[in-house]
Amino acid sequence: MARKASIIGGGVIGGGWAARFLLNGWDVSVFDPDPQAERKIGEVLANARRSLPALSDVPMPAEGRLSFAASIAESVEGADYIQESVSERLPLKHRVFAEIQAVAKGVPIGSSTSGFKPSELQEGAADPSTIFVSHPFNPVYLLPLSEIVPSPKSDLQIIENAKEILREIGMFPLHVRKEIDAHIADRFLEAVWREALWLVKDGIATTEEIDEAIRMGFGLRWGQMGLFETYRVAGGEAGMKHFMAQFGPCLQWPWTKLTDVPEFTEELVDLIAGQSDEQSGKYTIRELERIRDQNLIGFLRALKDRNWGAGKVLLDHDKRRRASFHETGKTGEGAPLVMAEMQVLPGWIDYNGHMTESRYLFASSETSDAFLRLIGADMDYVANGHSYYTAETHIMHLGEAKLGDRLTGTLQVLHADEKRLHVFIRILRGDEVVASLEQMLLHVDMKAGRTCPAAPEVLAKLLPIAEAHGSLPRPAAAGRFVGQRK
Amino acid sequence: MARKASIIGGGVIGGGWAARFLLNGWDVSVFDPDPQAERKIGEVLANARRSLPALSDVPMPAEGRLSFAASIAESVEGADYIQESVSERLPLKHRVFAEIQAVAKGVPIGSSTSGFKPSELQEGAADPSTIFVSHPFNPVYLLPLSEIVPSPKSDLQIIENAKEILREIGMFPLHVRKEIDAHIADRFLEAVWREALWLVKDGIATTEEIDEAIRMGFGLRWGQMGLFETYRVAGGEAGMKHFMAQFGPCLQWPWTKLTDVPEFTEELVDLIAGQSDEQSGKYTIRELERIRDQNLIGFLRALKDRNWGAGKVLLDHDKRRRASFHETGKTGEGAPLVMAEMQVLPGWIDYNGHMTESRYLFASSETSDAFLRLIGADMDYVANGHSYYTAETHIMHLGEAKLGDRLTGTLQVLHADEKRLHVFIRILRGDEVVASLEQMLLHVDMKAGRTCPAAPEVLAKLLPIAEAHGSLPRPAAAGRFVGQRK
Repeated sequence: MARKASIIGGGVIGGGWAARFLLNGWDVSVFDPDPQAERKIGEVLANARRSLPALSDVPMPAEGRLSFAASIAESVEGADYIQESVSERLPLKHRVFAEIQAVAKGVPIGSSTSGFKPSELQEGAADPSTIFVSHPFNPVYLLPLSEIVPSPKSDLQIIENAKEILREIGMFPLHVRKEIDAHIADRFLEAVWREALWLVKDGIATTEEIDEAIRMGFGLRWGQMGLFETYRVAGGEAGMKHFMAQFGPCLQWPWTKLTDVPEFTEELVDLIAGQSDEQSGKYTIRELERIRDQNLIGFLRALKDRNWGAGKVLLDHDKRRRASFHETGKTGEGAPLVMAEMQVLPGWIDYNGHMTESRYLFASSETSDAFLRLIGADMDYVANGHSYYTAETHIMHLGEAKLGDRLTGTLQVLHADEKRLHVFIRILRGDEVVASLEQMLLHVDMKAGRTCPAAPEVLAKLLPIAEAHGSLPRPAAAGRFVGQRK
Repeated sequence: MARKASIIGGGVIGGGWAARFLLNGWDVSVFDPDPQAERKIGEVLANARRSLPALSDVPMPAEGRLSFAASIAESVEGADYIQESVSERLPLKHRVFAEIQAVAKGVPIGSSTSGFKPSELQEGAADPSTIFVSHPFNPVYLLPLSEIVPSPKSDLQIIENAKEILREIGMFPLHVRKEIDAHIADRFLEAVWREALWLVKDGIATTEEIDEAIRMGFGLRWGQMGLFETYRVAGGEAGMKHFMAQFGPCLQWPWTKLTDVPEFTEELVDLIAGQSDEQSGKYTIRELERIRDQNLIGFLRALKDRNWGAGKVLLDHDKRRRASFHETGKTGEGAPLVMAEMQVLPGWIDYNGHMTESRYLFASSETSDAFLRLIGADMDYVANGHSYYTAETHIMHLGEAKLGDRLTGTLQVLHADEKRLHVFIRILRGDEVVASLEQMLLHVDMKAGRTCPAAPEVLAKLLPIAEAHGSLPRPAAAGRFVGQRK
């Protein structure tokens, strides 16, 4: 049975939490007295549905059920996890926690607060031990970070449970061991915000110039390494000590303003809002959200390709979900093997809005690679100098896959001997074959650069499958040449 | 004739400048009295050669000539642009400028300084008007930003010339209109560095935890939108004013430390260096550089796909260079048309170290797409509801392309009529055919979902090419089926 998350407060942040839980198969009950809450959550959810699946290489679980509760008590009833994202007013948060704890005992209660320490949140609570900070970053449905901050009164088992739940929904819980104002990340954001306000107020730079100074340079660095690792690299082979000896002193120069924030006069607000309109006003906020989300998908997939940073979180998340997904290649003898399940991602689409031509061959490779792993011709086998190379392929383009379509790759062995592997691959959407691919693979000694017999243990797996598939009907497209009359 | 850049100071930053100029076809003369300079520049250049071409979709120009000068005078002789990247000591920089200006008159002299204002650099100079700040970000060969800061004594024509030169080598010159300590970006870096040092010193977080707090959250945001645009989106439809009303006040809370930097005691340096070793010590600096560069390539290509931020800089750079490159599709009648020139990029490689199977079809699509544009079946044509769809493809895998290989795609029309376009595409490395692809394309009415005759103006271009190609020998692989004996 799906587990239940209770989301108290349904703004952009609460909506992001709701979307993460829902798309990862949890039921979600939202409480927010705002009559607009359902619309607002719906908009965030639409963004999340458009973007989060693009990060996954495992089919997403069935979406959980979304409901709106009439009271906090109703929302938290039976919940396995509760996330509070109401306005940053401490008395309000205290009232919310009291209402939650009147019903929910021993359930983790994370707060999205950026400003309050967990010990402040816990003041006057019936059970301080279940309340902690779980501070995410917008867009919550894409960015993995949540800062988890306990106080000395926290129950560490609750904290560990909460971290495990966040990992299950694809997040990266960063355990902040000592509570401190603004936790970690927002201290940096405040320091930069303060500098930026002075630069605008003093007429040094516009909002657009400041944004360019960030995103054309160090912003790109910080998406993949943080401050210290970046500087470690800058220090060269001599490392961190060298960097600090070289650059430490000039970082003490009094470059930056005092910690005062300029007063928020109407003039300053108008100046910033006006510059921001000039910079970004040609896009609506909805358009900017989509641009941002698509850019983040691009970054996150680049990192995933390299198993680095936030990309490692995504790969670990896939691995966790793949383990709970049905094993492929097990549909028995005498039928094409189901070897791959895929989803058409945004990067797979061409200017016609269809899956781009070369992605059909990509989907076929996913299918044949899985088959090669099944018969033991895997990465280790390749590392030992042998591999199957594709010599020849014939593709029939039969249908059009579109963004988000779920595809299945099946493989039928037409013929196999010691050196040759002749296969027929179908790429299906449901029961419809959108492309079929006939391929001849040759077993090669990679170093010698010529064909050679496959290892006995590979043939021991391959040949029985080939024999079983011998009884399958031969596909009409097998043996076809381009332009042949039907 | 190639233009000449003089690079004074050959460390990581000077080396990055040298690499940018060289790979964009400029001759470069480096002056650095360090006996290790040649080795150091060589290492940076090797990194740049491995990564910068991966951002380009236009073949790179022939690399310029690198030389090492025995004196500043020799290095700057005949230079069109001079970049100073020596240590951050003002008297040293003044001596360097004096030596430069004894020879080079009226040539832009950019300084990589992060700490000094242009008016400080210009003090005592023979000609203050040619000296300005051009402050880049490491790795200089990948990150587009350089902050261009003039003083009131600067010659604005020199500044405009310098900005144009930086655009030519693929950079984004950010004109900072008023000089200020640390320009713009390093003010932010210093503010974050200061906070980070306190967090480590006070035992709140380790270097690794701080890096995760950055790269799992706001660091990803800042690679594609800066501070203000991100907050504009966060403010929702109500926009920037709403954001400032909502979050302005809590950003005034005294979260962050004073502007003191903690004293660089040996204890603090050891603490940070030790944590950094624990975090990143499993990689050498060379390995970290490659990881960083590959991640940045991934980010930059993601942005390029979307014509956004730093990706727009790359697209503009391609466009500028494509204009100076020879037009394709002009090798005359009676020969296969050269339709595409490509380079094997890091993302095209499989676990065998070869170009991945589906990329051969991708290279073929690049070739056929260029041909369709040539005959007028372009994006506008598609927007009007007609297109050529691939019905069937036969691929012969004949060779193995590897990272960095330059590939050419040629197209021969085997047959064409009103609805059908039968082509033979060769993907070549030099004269060697690494793959051949035979394809049947059908002209379709996209809305009706069925074939229909191509537009007369398309046929008027296509049919003469088909007729001219009728005299070419028919490729042996045309009409072949998979597994056919040769």
